Amino acid sequence: MSKTLLEQEIHEQPEALARLLAAESDHIARLAGVIRQAQPPFVLIVARGSSDNAAVYGKYALGIFAGLPVALAAPSITTYYGRMPRVRGALVIGVSQSGQGEDVRTVVEQARAQGALTLAVTNDPESPLARTAEHCIGLHVGPEKSVAATKTYTAQLAVMAMLAAHIADDAGLKHDLAGLPAWVSQTLQLAQDAPARAERYRYMTRCVTLGRGFNYATAFELALKIKELTYTGTTPYSPADFRHGPMAQVDEGFPALAIAPDGAVLGDVMDLMRELRERQAELIVISNREEALALAQTPLPIPAIPEWLSPIVATIPGQLLAFGLSRAKGYDVDHPRLLRKVTSTR
Amino acid sequence: MSKTLLEQEIHEQPEALARLLAAESDHIARLAGVIRQAQPPFVLIVARGSSDNAAVYGKYALGIFAGLPVALAAPSITTYYGRMPRVRGALVIGVSQSGQGEDVRTVVEQARAQGALTLAVTNDPESPLARTAEHCIGLHVGPEKSVAATKTYTAQLAVMAMLAAHIADDAGLKHDLAGLPAWVSQTLQLAQDAPARAERYRYMTRCVTLGRGFNYATAFELALKIKELTYTGTTPYSPADFRHGPMAQVDEGFPALAIAPDGAVLGDVMDLMRELRERQAELIVISNREEALALAQTPLPIPAIPEWLSPIVATIPGQLLAFGLSRAKGYDVDHPRLLRKVTSTR
Repeated sequence: MSKTLLEQEIHEQPEALARLLAAESDHIARLAGVIRQAQPPFVLIVARGSSDNAAVYGKYALGIFAGLPVALAAPSITTYYGRMPRVRGALVIGVSQSGQGEDVRTVVEQARAQGALTLAVTNDPESPLARTAEHCIGLHVGPEKSVAATKTYTAQLAVMAMLAAHIADDAGLKHDLAGLPAWVSQTLQLAQDAPARAERYRYMTRCVTLGRGFNYATAFELALKIKELTYTGTTPYSPADFRHGPMAQVDEGFPALAIAPDGAVLGDVMDLMRELRERQAELIVISNREEALALAQTPLPIPAIPEWLSPIVATIPGQLLAFGLSRAKGYDVDHPRLLRKVTSTR
Repeated sequence: MSKTLLEQEIHEQPEALARLLAAESDHIARLAGVIRQAQPPFVLIVARGSSDNAAVYGKYALGIFAGLPVALAAPSITTYYGRMPRVRGALVIGVSQSGQGEDVRTVVEQARAQGALTLAVTNDPESPLARTAEHCIGLHVGPEKSVAATKTYTAQLAVMAMLAAHIADDAGLKHDLAGLPAWVSQTLQLAQDAPARAERYRYMTRCVTLGRGFNYATAFELALKIKELTYTGTTPYSPADFRHGPMAQVDEGFPALAIAPDGAVLGDVMDLMRELRERQAELIVISNREEALALAQTPLPIPAIPEWLSPIVATIPGQLLAFGLSRAKGYDVDHPRLLRKVTSTR
């Protein structure tokens, strides 16, 4: 059986990230100097879909390491209501795999006209978005052909991580980045059986994903992968928000995918996982800690990795699980129904 | 049959809003002067649960009318990672019904220590949050006893609307606000049969809510009400994000609740509703436009109202629908399982 494009692109992630690091590290270091000098009071990130999930990771990485408050843009403020909040002096980052989204481009264009420092993060440095922003960071992952974003998503996360490390000008963080391709390779090894383990969820009719801190973004991205590829209603939460209401849904067999790598928020995620198990919930756990994996009916191990970079590896077993579930259901994984690779939205 | 606390509190909303307007209009006008003079480069709103949905509305109202970019805080940056992004000079608003949330309070405390202009929005002006912020706007809606937030949510929206109108110092917007109690009364009249119409959804196992622009917040709040009160997996989307993936889930009978009042984004929401009907989806539509209601199996009419204030009325038929569905399922509407009124999160 020939591999689907989706599988190929998932497995290309180690080399894709190595190419990104080689191609953009010096450029991002220089750009970080420009950003530090500009002293932006805040960052506005404009994105849709998976790119918006990468923006959520950026909010944590830039907030924690660079001290920068990050707002996620509401493009309709500009595209439907014809207004543009004041962003003069801010750093405005447009993130888009294709660089074709007119809504994202419009916000970046108006930000640049106001005098913001503008940056495009895209896999196509010739795209309209790339041409609109003052600066552009390419993803260098090669064409992504399957409809569901995989290697472009992890590359967008890596760009956010690189920006945070270089703006913070932190040698330890910059050193961590170099380990990414190897960690991602190890993750693919460890996750070899993830597609087969998805069989258990063939008749799952709903799902939640749980992640916090750096991995709040991972919860969003894996919920999106499961929805796109398997048509299963899936909602992402932080444990804190899950306790504010959605907790009421939990009953026997309630399926939850928890992203629980070692780190500052692990205790909180573990507490919620234990409560879920007490209620007879079903747990899929992505973790590098034995005690977290031990709570799962379906443990998905990842290698030891600094928490701040863990979203880049923790996403991968979830990509493979969503792929496996799509295959188990007999779906066309490369062309989910009703979706196109480039989505036109205003 | 005696009324549940939830029904009582839903029906108190006209008087609750009238009390809020009477008690806080002058105070908010003065506070808006302080904010205009301070020229904050951006606003950071800190909140959880329903209050966080009110913050989403604030992002649109303050962005569109006051030109202020709004970031929603990630409290874990502070509570778990021990960092606080630089917010000196910014306006930082903590929103909490009870004012008891320690995570929200901590972020406001650190913001004030940094030199931000801090504001609490809470129903308890003696709460820890109220005592931590420099300024406090009370909700004045009386005690809310049912676990699911209703009148405190619409009051939080009204506070955001009042802030936007007064910071913008726009006479037309300020004039609009005075109409709120009457519009909410009319909405309750029009929505009398919403609880009974919920019967149709007795066996619904999943749901999405769709709203855009000002009513993006309404989609989030109604998804939360449905989850809390009926334990039905429900996910909110903007039409733009729905097309970026979740669209793939749509099949015959797929239930979608669309918030579609007259306004700038109506065309986009209508386009998606038509696509959903073509795919044999089931539509619940909250609208004041005949052509939108005509697309619904379950039309929920609201009165004509300026779009920017429509979230305050559009929420109400959804509250009543969630109440009716909870009752149809035989649940304890005032005490959903596993939930408490004050949720402790870090």
